[in-house]
Amino acid sequence: MHAEIIAAGSEMLTPERIDTNSLWLTQQLNGLGVEVTQKTIIGDDRDRLADAVRSAIDRSPIVILTGGLGPTEDDVTREAAAQALMRRLLFSEELMAALEARFERLGRKMSANNRRQAFLIEGALVLPNPNGTAAGQWIDLPGRVVMLLPGPPRELEPMFTNHCAPLLTGMLPKRALFTRVFRVAGMPESELDQLIAPVYKEYSNPATTVLAKAGDIQIHLRASGETAAAAQALADLVGDRIRAILGDRIYSDNGDPLELALGRLLRSRGATLAVAESCTGGLLGARITDAAGASEWFLGGFQVYGKQMKTRLLGLDENLVNEHGVVSEAVARAMADSARDRTGATYALSITGEAGPEPASPGIEPGTVWIGMAAPDGVSARKFRFLGDRARVRAFAAQTALNLLRLSL
Amino acid sequence: MHAEIIAAGSEMLTPERIDTNSLWLTQQLNGLGVEVTQKTIIGDDRDRLADAVRSAIDRSPIVILTGGLGPTEDDVTREAAAQALMRRLLFSEELMAALEARFERLGRKMSANNRRQAFLIEGALVLPNPNGTAAGQWIDLPGRVVMLLPGPPRELEPMFTNHCAPLLTGMLPKRALFTRVFRVAGMPESELDQLIAPVYKEYSNPATTVLAKAGDIQIHLRASGETAAAAQALADLVGDRIRAILGDRIYSDNGDPLELALGRLLRSRGATLAVAESCTGGLLGARITDAAGASEWFLGGFQVYGKQMKTRLLGLDENLVNEHGVVSEAVARAMADSARDRTGATYALSITGEAGPEPASPGIEPGTVWIGMAAPDGVSARKFRFLGDRARVRAFAAQTALNLLRLSL
Repeated sequence: MHAEIIAAGSEMLTPERIDTNSLWLTQQLNGLGVEVTQKTIIGDDRDRLADAVRSAIDRSPIVILTGGLGPTEDDVTREAAAQALMRRLLFSEELMAALEARFERLGRKMSANNRRQAFLIEGALVLPNPNGTAAGQWIDLPGRVVMLLPGPPRELEPMFTNHCAPLLTGMLPKRALFTRVFRVAGMPESELDQLIAPVYKEYSNPATTVLAKAGDIQIHLRASGETAAAAQALADLVGDRIRAILGDRIYSDNGDPLELALGRLLRSRGATLAVAESCTGGLLGARITDAAGASEWFLGGFQVYGKQMKTRLLGLDENLVNEHGVVSEAVARAMADSARDRTGATYALSITGEAGPEPASPGIEPGTVWIGMAAPDGVSARKFRFLGDRARVRAFAAQTALNLLRLSL
Repeated sequence: MHAEIIAAGSEMLTPERIDTNSLWLTQQLNGLGVEVTQKTIIGDDRDRLADAVRSAIDRSPIVILTGGLGPTEDDVTREAAAQALMRRLLFSEELMAALEARFERLGRKMSANNRRQAFLIEGALVLPNPNGTAAGQWIDLPGRVVMLLPGPPRELEPMFTNHCAPLLTGMLPKRALFTRVFRVAGMPESELDQLIAPVYKEYSNPATTVLAKAGDIQIHLRASGETAAAAQALADLVGDRIRAILGDRIYSDNGDPLELALGRLLRSRGATLAVAESCTGGLLGARITDAAGASEWFLGGFQVYGKQMKTRLLGLDENLVNEHGVVSEAVARAMADSARDRTGATYALSITGEAGPEPASPGIEPGTVWIGMAAPDGVSARKFRFLGDRARVRAFAAQTALNLLRLSL
C-alpha cells in the first residue's frame, strides 16, 4: 500500500519555509506498513491544488492533504479537494456550533471568516480537532481515501494518531511493526556508524536508520512480523548486538530524550539538580523542563549572561573572573559550586562559553565551552570545542552537560 | 514567469530526509523574478518521475530537476526526462573523455557504471560540473526549458549560479523582486486577517501571505517590478496601508524576531533587562540570547522552577507564596520586583504559570500564566490563559512577556 502527501501553502514555496509535516506523517505511515511514493507542495491556488489532488487520486490509494484549512481566503484546501472530487461543499450546523462553543469557552469573539471552517465536503467524515478551529475531513472513495488535515503540527499530529491511524489500520492488511529506538550521546555519527554498520547491514528486517542532531544520535530499528511480539523479537536480536557494542553510550532504549533519562537516574537516587548558565542563557533549564515532571528533580538556577551577573547573582570573586576570564575552568567550577550551594541541590551543572559567531572574549575561539559540575564529592570542569553556528554550539553545550552528569551517576 | 522544482531520490521520501535544495533554488529564482509554484518529490522510479516531468512541462515554463544523475541504477533522472520529452539518450564521447580525465586526475579507477553519466538527452546543452562526475543538462523547448541538476548542494549551487542563472536571465523579462516582512504579536491570526484582508486582497502585486506560530504572525508582501526600487514601492504602498491598520501591533518590518525588536528599543534607551522564570525554566532567557549581541541589554536572571527556589533564590516571602499560591499575581509581581532588584536591571519580566498537561497546583487550569513586569515606575502583572500543549503554552508565555515589555516602552 502506498500514499502521497500534498502540502498546501504559499509559504512553503518561499526560500524560508519547508514542509516538515510530511516527515512525521511518513514515519507514521511507514509504521502502518504504508510507503510514501510522492510529495507535492503547492501554493494557495485552488485550481493547481485541485489538479494535484486529481492526479494523486489517480495514482495512489491514500492521499493526504495538509494545510490550507484555516479561516482565511488563502485557505483553499476544502474548495480544491471538493473541486477535484466533483463534490459539493456543505455547511455543517454541527461544526458551526462546535466552533462557536470553542470561541465562547475562550471568551473570544468569533470572526465572520471562521464560518468558512464549518464547510464539509459532501460525504466526508469529520476528524475532530481539539487543538484548533480547523476540523479535518476523511473522504472514502472506492478503494481510496483522501484526508484533509490542518497544517499546524500540534493539530495535525493528534488528529492523525487518534483518528486517521485507526481508520487506516482497518483498511490495511494486518502486519505488526515494532520500532526500537536507541539514543546515544557523546560520539560523532560517523564513528558510531563505523562501529555498528557491520551488524545492522546483515539484516533487512529490522531496517535500521541512524539519525544525528546536535550531539544526539538516534538508532531506529524497525521490524515487522506477524505479531507485535515477533516483530519485537527481530528488533531485539539486532538491538542486543548493538547494545553490546555501544554500552553506556546508549542512554535510552525507548526514544526518551537525555533529560528524561537523566531525570530517572536522579529521581531513583532522591537527588536534585541546579544549573548556572552563561552563553546558553537558559537553554539548559528550558530543555530540562520541556517535559512535565521535572519538578521532582530539577530545582532551578541562574542565568548569568552578563559578565557582572557572575559576581552579582552567584557571588563569584570579581578578581577570579577578571584574572581567568569568563570562559575559563575557574569560572565554570565556581559557577557550578555556587549554584549548588545557593540552591541546595545535590548536583549543579554550569556552562560558560563562546557561542559565536564573533569572538566576544579576546583569545577565545567561538565554539569553546567550559562545562562545570558540582557534586557531593567535589567540583570538576571540562573544556569542549563545538563546531558550527551559534545555535549548534549552544545545543551541543546543553546536551553535553546533561550527558556528563549522566555518565558520572 | 514561474518555475517548478522536482527532486528525485527515494531517500527524500523517508521520515529522515527532506529536499532542501529547493530552498536555495527558490531564493535564486526569486532573485531573477521567477516564482516557484510547485515542488514535487519523487522516489527512484523512472515511470513516476517521467509522469511528473511531463505534467510539470505542461504547467510551467521552467522545470528544474535535481538529483538522480549519479552512476548507479537508482539514478533514473536522465532516462525519465528523456522518456517525458520523447527524446533519445545519446552517448557523448566528449563527456566520457571528461569523466576519464577526472578519474585520472584523482588517481582513481573509474567504475563501469560511471559510463551512465556520459549519456545526454538529444539536443541538450551540457552544464559542466567541476565538483563531481554528474554533468548537468539544459534542454530548450519552445517557450520552455528543462534543467537536470545534480543533487549534492556543492555541485548544484555553482552549476546553477555559473550556467543556469545567466541562461535564464537571457530568457526572462527584466524583473526585480522585493519582499517586505511585517511581524505582529498579541493578536490571533483570524482577527488580524479580518482586519487586513480587505486591503491586501485588492492587490495581486504584491502577493500577500500570512503565517502564524505560537503568538507570532508574519505578513509577507512579495512585490515584483522593473527595478528593485519599483518593486519596493509597490510593497510599501500596501505595507503602509497595513501599518496604518495594525499600528504598534507590528513590532518589526524587516522580519526580525521579537527579541531583536525589543533589544533595539532597550538599547536605544540604554536600558537593561532581567528575567525570573518559573514554568518556562529558562526558555525566555534562551530565546533572548538566541542571537548574538543580547549582552548589550540582557543581564540574566533566575530559573525558579522548584517552589522553594522562589524564596531561596529571589527572597520571596514564604507566607506570600503559600497564601497566594505559586501561580498568582502576587508571586508574579514579587518575582519581577526581586529580579530587577537583584540584577540591577532597568526592567524585569517574570513568568509563573501552569504549563500542563496535568494541573500541578490545585484550582489552576493548565494554560494559566501570570506575567509580571518590574519597571522604574512600578510593578505590574497580567493573567493569561494560553491554549494548547505544554510546549505551546511555554512558547506563548515567552512571546507574550517580550511583547508586554515592548508595548510598555
